[in-house]
Amino acid sequence: MRCFPAAVERLTEQFARLPGIGGKTAQRLAFHVLSLPEAEAEEFAEAITEAKRTVRTCPVCQNLTDQALCAICGDEQRDRGTICVVAEPRDVIAMERAREYRGMYHVLHGVISPLNHTGPDDLRIKELLARVGEGGVREVIMATNPDTEGEATAMYLSRLLRPLGVRVTRLAYGIPVGSQLEYADEVTLLRALEGRQEF
Amino acid sequence: MRCFPAAVERLTEQFARLPGIGGKTAQRLAFHVLSLPEAEAEEFAEAITEAKRTVRTCPVCQNLTDQALCAICGDEQRDRGTICVVAEPRDVIAMERAREYRGMYHVLHGVISPLNHTGPDDLRIKELLARVGEGGVREVIMATNPDTEGEATAMYLSRLLRPLGVRVTRLAYGIPVGSQLEYADEVTLLRALEGRQEF
Repeated sequence: MRCFPAAVERLTEQFARLPGIGGKTAQRLAFHVLSLPEAEAEEFAEAITEAKRTVRTCPVCQNLTDQALCAICGDEQRDRGTICVVAEPRDVIAMERAREYRGMYHVLHGVISPLNHTGPDDLRIKELLARVGEGGVREVIMATNPDTEGEATAMYLSRLLRPLGVRVTRLAYGIPVGSQLEYADEVTLLRALEGRQEF
Repeated sequence: MRCFPAAVERLTEQFARLPGIGGKTAQRLAFHVLSLPEAEAEEFAEAITEAKRTVRTCPVCQNLTDQALCAICGDEQRDRGTICVVAEPRDVIAMERAREYRGMYHVLHGVISPLNHTGPDDLRIKELLARVGEGGVREVIMATNPDTEGEATAMYLSRLLRPLGVRVTRLAYGIPVGSQLEYADEVTLLRALEGRQEF
């Protein structure tokens, strides 16, 4: 017997599609949303629509922004000669927390992962090569996660970048191997940045 | 430095308000929604609006429904002489899974919890007393969670119901104490239903 209205089941399915949210949790979340005052639920729905509508990727670094250019690419104070390559927008936040890096970023939006059917063409690699190809870049720092896929992606990129006459480095193994960049503390990230090595 | 557009932060805040979702998870969910195709994100937003718009509580048992009367209250085959009282709509599903109970339900939408500032007036207790007061009910089965608040709520209700000349029982302690009703398996729930005792 169906105990719930179809709309509740549809909302539960939507939550269940989110990463790391199982069936039971999805149901709890759906019930929670139903228990919210109408205005708050509407606010939630609008936050989704609004985010999708206003957020785009920066044409230079590919980070998320709602401006023509993201805040970092638009900052004249930052060193245009260094590009730090990260997998995800959240990794930019992690790097900025270390308060040491004053260069630019490049967000790949993923890593090469044959298991997840993500190949080089699914990432923002063309855009990175174009930036470096334009000249003025002295160094590209690889800051992908220190796991198999992150390392493989960094290795792949370093082979494409070196022929362009640019120095390619990676964050030192101050970052605990196998962990995730976004959970690293500021001091660890600072050490990793200072100890960066040639590929 | 603000690394993200305001809309991303607003969406993250919305997710962070959900029960059991911390800041990091909220951020991951927000990024996931941003990575969805426009149509799928819109579907998510609409599922929220649609659920809030169409879902109401059944005027008899207070369970969620999108009809004038919920499926169970509208089913002529079910025994109107027995009412099973549960805290939440999801507990109706748990009971129905046991495929043994053929009576009606009453959903309180919470339990008495001084810590969470939930008093008797915040629950659908008036509605339960009115249903029993109308006559025709032989037995009220308490099926609140077997924890302190669930037991206290059942105890409170039994004191209000007994003067109305109705038999008040509760599910047997076949349910592991301290657990949650929605995670109980069918057989345990069946045993609990069979072994129900007088208050």
